[in-house]
Amino acid sequence: MFEKLKNLKTYEAGKPVELVVRKYGIKPEEIIKLASNENPYGPSPKVIQAVKQNTPFMHRYPDDSYYELKEKLSKKHNVKNSNIIIGAGSDQILEFAIHAIKPKKVLTAGITFAMYEIYSKQVGAEILKTPSKEHNLNEFYEIYQKQKPEIIFLCVPNNPLGECLDAKDVFDFLEKIDSETLIIIDGAYQEFAAFKDKNKEIIPSKILDYPNVLYTGTFSKAYALGGMRVGYGIANEYIIKNLYKLRPPFNITTLSLIAAVKALEDEEWVKKGIENNFKQMQKYIDFANENNLKYINSWTNFIVFYIKNSTKIANELLKKGIIIRDMSSYGFDALRITIGKPEENEKLLKILREIN
Amino acid sequence: MFEKLKNLKTYEAGKPVELVVRKYGIKPEEIIKLASNENPYGPSPKVIQAVKQNTPFMHRYPDDSYYELKEKLSKKHNVKNSNIIIGAGSDQILEFAIHAIKPKKVLTAGITFAMYEIYSKQVGAEILKTPSKEHNLNEFYEIYQKQKPEIIFLCVPNNPLGECLDAKDVFDFLEKIDSETLIIIDGAYQEFAAFKDKNKEIIPSKILDYPNVLYTGTFSKAYALGGMRVGYGIANEYIIKNLYKLRPPFNITTLSLIAAVKALEDEEWVKKGIENNFKQMQKYIDFANENNLKYINSWTNFIVFYIKNSTKIANELLKKGIIIRDMSSYGFDALRITIGKPEENEKLLKILREIN
Repeated sequence: MFEKLKNLKTYEAGKPVELVVRKYGIKPEEIIKLASNENPYGPSPKVIQAVKQNTPFMHRYPDDSYYELKEKLSKKHNVKNSNIIIGAGSDQILEFAIHAIKPKKVLTAGITFAMYEIYSKQVGAEILKTPSKEHNLNEFYEIYQKQKPEIIFLCVPNNPLGECLDAKDVFDFLEKIDSETLIIIDGAYQEFAAFKDKNKEIIPSKILDYPNVLYTGTFSKAYALGGMRVGYGIANEYIIKNLYKLRPPFNITTLSLIAAVKALEDEEWVKKGIENNFKQMQKYIDFANENNLKYINSWTNFIVFYIKNSTKIANELLKKGIIIRDMSSYGFDALRITIGKPEENEKLLKILREIN
Repeated sequence: MFEKLKNLKTYEAGKPVELVVRKYGIKPEEIIKLASNENPYGPSPKVIQAVKQNTPFMHRYPDDSYYELKEKLSKKHNVKNSNIIIGAGSDQILEFAIHAIKPKKVLTAGITFAMYEIYSKQVGAEILKTPSKEHNLNEFYEIYQKQKPEIIFLCVPNNPLGECLDAKDVFDFLEKIDSETLIIIDGAYQEFAAFKDKNKEIIPSKILDYPNVLYTGTFSKAYALGGMRVGYGIANEYIIKNLYKLRPPFNITTLSLIAAVKALEDEEWVKKGIENNFKQMQKYIDFANENNLKYINSWTNFIVFYIKNSTKIANELLKKGIIIRDMSSYGFDALRITIGKPEENEKLLKILREIN
């Protein structure tokens, strides 16, 4: 009955707090989770307040047009409502695009967001990866010319590595790609990149002129709503109209809709979180320099260190209730650490200094 | 780029409260929405309390194993955790199944839940419908023998009509179908049916013996969490393992997970809501009898009346701030009314008596 799935594996997410609690008997409130690039400061108090007030209405389906959210997003990004589609996380927008096109070949960076590959394999696509781990647009172009993939993914900045293409280089690249190839610019961490360096900022309204470019954004990172599953796609109306054909009704929850709308009303909170993120990131950079550890310059809310025995170190930390991401499954020894709150970073760095 | 979607239409959900507010300038608190089979009593106060307490953690992804929820569901239904998959509404379980099998032909009742057709068309399937609007298993079997569909949908009880097959007849039917055809028993309204008549109750653990049967349940109706998008599938491990291959990580929200777990801890609240539902439904039956209107005997939380000029009546009601479902798009004059709270039903019945 399921022959068509026989080469598909099941995706396993990072270790949840609850699992560590069960395994090592550590109290939930003592666990430090710096593994999933969640915003450690949580959502704005105004968001929390609004969601609380709406908990009596959990039996009501959301306004499936997502009118209010699209209104706010369209103002923020200077596009029309009809240029926007809402998803259960930006993941779901990627899923719509891949399931809509059913590509034979998909091109991504050597190491990038895992879901590109997972969704692509669901439709039987072959995954082409650049030889470089980080995004290298020359390599992208070379493979594009030879292999003509139907979808190209650019993760700007890139998860799980942290590096970020210049916006100018991205737009130069778009010019060179034929209009039958969809280019998806995943901007999940764009708020962080744009804050650190304006040269990295992808302005979504600028991609509308292209017949074949889809930008995706999320409320999961800078807006601190990872658990609420809200993201969006921005593109020309033709692309959006087609993605809509695959959208199930009520694809975000009633409370998620309220949370996202309210989050857009407190940009000050978001900005403060991003500022703190880069202040705290400096502590990790200092640690790396002290110890001659190579790290990847990051435009996100996480940082990757190359470090020997990364699996061993990650396991040591896990036993102490600190969850980070070991990169060894990608074929190299490194750790990806989400930048936490000051006290969390201090505790982690103290232990790392002891181990090292 | 999107040639594969060219015959697909975009699904449009029922009129949301917000739309009526915008169109007729009626205050949101004055609107009565009896169109989407939402549980009018809302979730248990214990559910509301737990969700409120967890609003500060909206930045955290849920435990993607959904361990606690599966534990509770497995106890309730007397199955193993490995027999369960969680979805963003039971809709998403249907989506997994259809996308996994990619059927050429799908068989459903003449009039039934719209998503069967929508998801099936996404994978290019032909939709076969029985001549009868309501479920008629003889017709199902006849078409099955001639056409060999890869998926058969039984909606027990049936939305949007309300009728319900006897469990015995369903199990007799399962015996006659070859093991390569997946039969999906959609139990979205099973809690209502089982309360009204034990002969209608499908016990999910009994379907595990079949290699080709998937049961789906939801928290959207009796459990009053429609807006939170939580449903589940129950089947043998082989089916569940395969559906898991199409499940995106974090497919329900952090707050939805908590709401569903807590809802299972207050079955008393659920039972009270169902009792009230059938008490209130009697008022609609009385109205129908008074007026010699034909109605469909219902095992759900809604009732369908055959009534002339149903579109006109629905529009009249809409202008007065009452939203119900006009069935004329299905090709016959009828109204589907969700059973509301006493005061809502009274107001609606008063207006219907005036119109009639």
